[in-house]
Amino acid sequence: MSTLKVSIIGASGYSGGELLRILLQHPQVHVHQVTSNRYAGLSVTQAHPNLRSITSLKFTKIEHLESCDFLFTSLPNGESMHQMSAWMQLAEKIIDLGADFRLNSQELWEKWYGTKHSAPHNMAQFTYGVPELFREQIQKSQYVSGPGCEAIVSILSLFPFVKQAIIQKDQIIIDAKMGSSQAGNRPSPASHHPERAGVTRSYKPTGHRHTAEIEQALGSFCPGTRVDVSATAIEMVRGILVTIHTSLENPIEDREIWNALRKEYSQEPFIRIVKEKRGLYRFPEPKILQGTNHCEIGFEKDGRNDRLVIIGAIDNLVKGTAGNATQCMNLMCGFPETQGLEFPGLHPV
Amino acid sequence: MSTLKVSIIGASGYSGGELLRILLQHPQVHVHQVTSNRYAGLSVTQAHPNLRSITSLKFTKIEHLESCDFLFTSLPNGESMHQMSAWMQLAEKIIDLGADFRLNSQELWEKWYGTKHSAPHNMAQFTYGVPELFREQIQKSQYVSGPGCEAIVSILSLFPFVKQAIIQKDQIIIDAKMGSSQAGNRPSPASHHPERAGVTRSYKPTGHRHTAEIEQALGSFCPGTRVDVSATAIEMVRGILVTIHTSLENPIEDREIWNALRKEYSQEPFIRIVKEKRGLYRFPEPKILQGTNHCEIGFEKDGRNDRLVIIGAIDNLVKGTAGNATQCMNLMCGFPETQGLEFPGLHPV
Amino acid sequence: MSTLKVSIIGASGYSGGELLRILLQHPQVHVHQVTSNRYAGLSVTQAHPNLRSITSLKFTKIEHLESCDFLFTSLPNGESMHQMSAWMQLAEKIIDLGADFRLNSQELWEKWYGTKHSAPHNMAQFTYGVPELFREQIQKSQYVSGPGCEAIVSILSLFPFVKQAIIQKDQIIIDAKMGSSQAGNRPSPASHHPERAGVTRSYKPTGHRHTAEIEQALGSFCPGTRVDVSATAIEMVRGILVTIHTSLENPIEDREIWNALRKEYSQEPFIRIVKEKRGLYRFPEPKILQGTNHCEIGFEKDGRNDRLVIIGAIDNLVKGTAGNATQCMNLMCGFPETQGLEFPGLHPV
Amino acid sequence: MSTLKVSIIGASGYSGGELLRILLQHPQVHVHQVTSNRYAGLSVTQAHPNLRSITSLKFTKIEHLESCDFLFTSLPNGESMHQMSAWMQLAEKIIDLGADFRLNSQELWEKWYGTKHSAPHNMAQFTYGVPELFREQIQKSQYVSGPGCEAIVSILSLFPFVKQAIIQKDQIIIDAKMGSSQAGNRPSPASHHPERAGVTRSYKPTGHRHTAEIEQALGSFCPGTRVDVSATAIEMVRGILVTIHTSLENPIEDREIWNALRKEYSQEPFIRIVKEKRGLYRFPEPKILQGTNHCEIGFEKDGRNDRLVIIGAIDNLVKGTAGNATQCMNLMCGFPETQGLEFPGLHPV
Repeated sequence: MSTLKVSIIGASGYSGGELLRILLQHPQVHVHQVTSNRYAGLSVTQAHPNLRSITSLKFTKIEHLESCDFLFTSLPNGESMHQMSAWMQLAEKIIDLGADFRLNSQELWEKWYGTKHSAPHNMAQFTYGVPELFREQIQKSQYVSGPGCEAIVSILSLFPFVKQAIIQKDQIIIDAKMGSSQAGNRPSPASHHPERAGVTRSYKPTGHRHTAEIEQALGSFCPGTRVDVSATAIEMVRGILVTIHTSLENPIEDREIWNALRKEYSQEPFIRIVKEKRGLYRFPEPKILQGTNHCEIGFEKDGRNDRLVIIGAIDNLVKGTAGNATQCMNLMCGFPETQGLEFPGLHPV
Repeated sequence: MSTLKVSIIGASGYSGGELLRILLQHPQVHVHQVTSNRYAGLSVTQAHPNLRSITSLKFTKIEHLESCDFLFTSLPNGESMHQMSAWMQLAEKIIDLGADFRLNSQELWEKWYGTKHSAPHNMAQFTYGVPELFREQIQKSQYVSGPGCEAIVSILSLFPFVKQAIIQKDQIIIDAKMGSSQAGNRPSPASHHPERAGVTRSYKPTGHRHTAEIEQALGSFCPGTRVDVSATAIEMVRGILVTIHTSLENPIEDREIWNALRKEYSQEPFIRIVKEKRGLYRFPEPKILQGTNHCEIGFEKDGRNDRLVIIGAIDNLVKGTAGNATQCMNLMCGFPETQGLEFPGLHPV
Repeated sequence: MSTLKVSIIGASGYSGGELLRILLQHPQVHVHQVTSNRYAGLSVTQAHPNLRSITSLKFTKIEHLESCDFLFTSLPNGESMHQMSAWMQLAEKIIDLGADFRLNSQELWEKWYGTKHSAPHNMAQFTYGVPELFREQIQKSQYVSGPGCEAIVSILSLFPFVKQAIIQKDQIIIDAKMGSSQAGNRPSPASHHPERAGVTRSYKPTGHRHTAEIEQALGSFCPGTRVDVSATAIEMVRGILVTIHTSLENPIEDREIWNALRKEYSQEPFIRIVKEKRGLYRFPEPKILQGTNHCEIGFEKDGRNDRLVIIGAIDNLVKGTAGNATQCMNLMCGFPETQGLEFPGLHPV
Repeated sequence: MSTLKVSIIGASGYSGGELLRILLQHPQVHVHQVTSNRYAGLSVTQAHPNLRSITSLKFTKIEHLESCDFLFTSLPNGESMHQMSAWMQLAEKIIDLGADFRLNSQELWEKWYGTKHSAPHNMAQFTYGVPELFREQIQKSQYVSGPGCEAIVSILSLFPFVKQAIIQKDQIIIDAKMGSSQAGNRPSPASHHPERAGVTRSYKPTGHRHTAEIEQALGSFCPGTRVDVSATAIEMVRGILVTIHTSLENPIEDREIWNALRKEYSQEPFIRIVKEKRGLYRFPEPKILQGTNHCEIGFEKDGRNDRLVIIGAIDNLVKGTAGNATQCMNLMCGFPETQGLEFPGLHPV
């Protein structure tokens, strides 16, 4: 079993740290370098105390990055585009976890992100990394762009219904409940514990940036798909729940909805359909997904049989970022798709 | 200043306890009796430890209820209807906090609550207790029914927009985020701390019972109003936030929306319009409303100017139940409307 | 009823904001000015969103401070000492909420705070503001220093036992559990929600600064009293619980301990002895004290009858700071001692 | 690699479920049967939703228990003693997770647990399962008793200091901060979310039952060791932090304390000494240990050099119960000691 030489740019952030946690225990990976300008020279455990006694790796400066087999870049939006061409010289395969290469239209990107894109020529080189929708393309790709955490759970929850024209493609409202870790590790007044604890904060009632990539991904199966996203921050560190309000094209039986989901997902290792008649976890629940790469999807039809509520849950740092990226890496490298991603989650927690 | 002799039936529950907290400090009220079969003979502080050193009142059995000026009934749904006629002999004025007299149609009630209504003849005697919509009727009423907590915040948030035909009356989706106290004080597996802590639990994705009273209240101003409610339990003890997704009838400016809200609410003592450009509390936030009778309402239009997200927040036990009932009592008795309800809330908390 | 003209220096912080909340509803107080350099010119509701619709007051710069009847200063440790002499010209009576005038020895202050004290001549002018221990002095004082939040709950919990020589004065270990609001409103990595949420962080295992004022206050009744403080930050915004481990001087009955507490505290409006045989709130609990000025004190003897665990709880921003300062102001001005401090707290919460 | 046939009695509880999670991924274990009278016939995922898509195992009734290689019993205190003799006929090796066989004295057991012990003849057959203290005995044992969660973290934190006579053996105060999962999965008024959320509840100020096993285990190295335990429930689901207040025998340097810890623990795979000069995780922190088998230990000396505060942290369901039991199983079966226990924990979480 050969070993893949992997480096991570921007490894002191939450996504980078989660990737490091997963890759350090991946049987076919050797973590070669992890960069952080803030922490250069220090042990990775300064930023990620959970890795104490697991690794003695230290952060290096980004300018000391050496060539490797596989490179992950985990930087704030708008930063990786400037250097991507140079990094392509250092690594054969790259997954970028930021937003810079998620959209395939420069115009669209600049509209949603409000700045000039400095590397539009690289945009078409990146495959959008949702294995459940684009597995074959990912397997053949050198470059993959990791989706936004809110985007991937919405896309996975909606995909069967949009593709199979079960719901009206222009009546989709995504009400997202978000944990605090998705905003990254920089302190701010908004993240100050006495203010952030216990909030139900409507931080983005309309106009969430992930709208663009959700519409792009679903639109490639059903052109003209429109979604409206409202995001509320709640008391949670890890996790996202999306409650998706949709209108049925035609009245439908629960059984048919189950079939629609099974048709797309019955072989998917990380998708769980959750719709139970009893118990405390009858629908998707991010609480028990912490640390796992699972995406749970459930649904409930209303009594008038004209509306369908679809529910999706993930851990934003795993299936929402680092775990999903590892799954893509496994596909790109011909490794078993679930390798390194077997953690089942905790209960209670 | 004369004193009103008030009793509370079912005072060991959370709503009853909150009412007791408020009434004990109301300058024109004397709390005469509080009943609880479970706690009869014990100090109210056994159930409500916050009232230690505030009162030496004890619970009595319901059969020992004496006549009084004003009676509050705070029992589980389906219980007060059986005895309401008898209680009407004991008190001139009554506010029922349960669901039994919220709807004005027996058929509708039985459809949503799934059991026979035993006192349909009493239904028409009760005014639905939302002061901001029905102030004059409440002032003239002997009997008032307190709205459901999820209902009142939805009604108050939607009222100006439905009444003024700003939004489409049949495209209203209410996504409610709920604290644990709204489910009452009976332990259950669902409320067991290791299971309930940190959840984002889709406990009622469709078919929430409060749908009926929301449609009835708004429908009295705009017949045919339809709402769809999805309720998610989150990590919070007190509080509700509703994120209401609506479709605009016509494109509209923010200024006009402000005007629509001010038109209905500029004189309302407990309504706050919250829509700030900066700061951490730009939209309604239940966290800082704990203990207060305020309802905060905010909104954001989407970029395409065809959707409007309306946001409402309350403390489910105050404006959602006991505080609102006190406000109704003040109206029914000719007291200043805000009396006993001046607590401004805490920050941080 | 004449009205006291009160100003607050440093009113944008958590303690200043809490003081403002209380004073705005105090029937004998008119809040004249509130200063904040950061927020000067802005509405106080920018910093304290709970005060929306309660006040239209704006922050002013400290240099625009005018004369008033009563001045509160609520600044970071080490700041008020530089200007205290000047402020004494502007107001007849002052309560300082910081640490600068808590100790009566310059040497001791400089040892614990690690900097030079610039106004040692003012130290003796300040009375240490614990009404339960020093009521008469406070009534006669022009200048009062508000105790540290951790200090006051420890002092109140220990006072009867130290004064009456029930416990060994040099075997006192205070294990304090602290909420996040006590660290103030400045964001930092330590207060960043994903890091701070759910912690049980030993942030000061030994050497807590409040040691000095606890020993000073108790030492004035029992010279040589020694305490050792360990502080742990837990998931809580408001509140402190101290678990105090002590050694009994002699075996003692519970009844005698009750008597010892009653002897000192039976007339105290804000002290509650909490030691119940049944129920969920058998011992002091900060959760239900949020927003109140109460200090709950309880105890349990071990089976070997040689150790006594004393438990104390407060809201760090009320009895721990702003509420206690209001109580002192009431004493200094001849107002009823409990005025403005009647809020009984919430349950559940 | 042969496979061990393992069954779990009482697998629907939190400890049993955690054991199941670990064993299902243990490469040398086949889980044969899991019993639960309450859930018999149902999928294990009804009780443990995190195991969805991981296993299709069902619960069986305890009377259908078959013979196996290794048996874990995870029942409420006082239940396993009645049937232990019978189970010894079904399995060669047994680990009991309850309290019934933790003490080696019937008299002591009956004193602390308040009931008659029905199988005193079995008591001496069980080795107390702390690998770090009793590794060789465990390796040779057929029967092992898993320690209490609060006991094991206290024992591990104190062991080097007691054994090497660094602290006074009769001046040890353990102040334990506890999560809610340690009380098991039965709902009660005390665990009802609106009551339990956000508490700082002194639920056992003195007389904690684990005192007996702590004194027994440490006393086997240093006779006469006495500990006093106070337990406080805080807002946390998983985790324990112990703050241990001790008196030094003689003044000592930090360096010597480090040496004392290293002497006992330098080869221990699951002990981490945590005492950092900077960063947010300077001392042991249960938050980041969730799901891991690590025990973190730290310390701080006071400025007078006569007191030592020792701090220990674990996940109560892993190193506190199921993980530690797996570690014992590994020792008893000659497997690598860390097998199945490699999960490093999450950050942030």
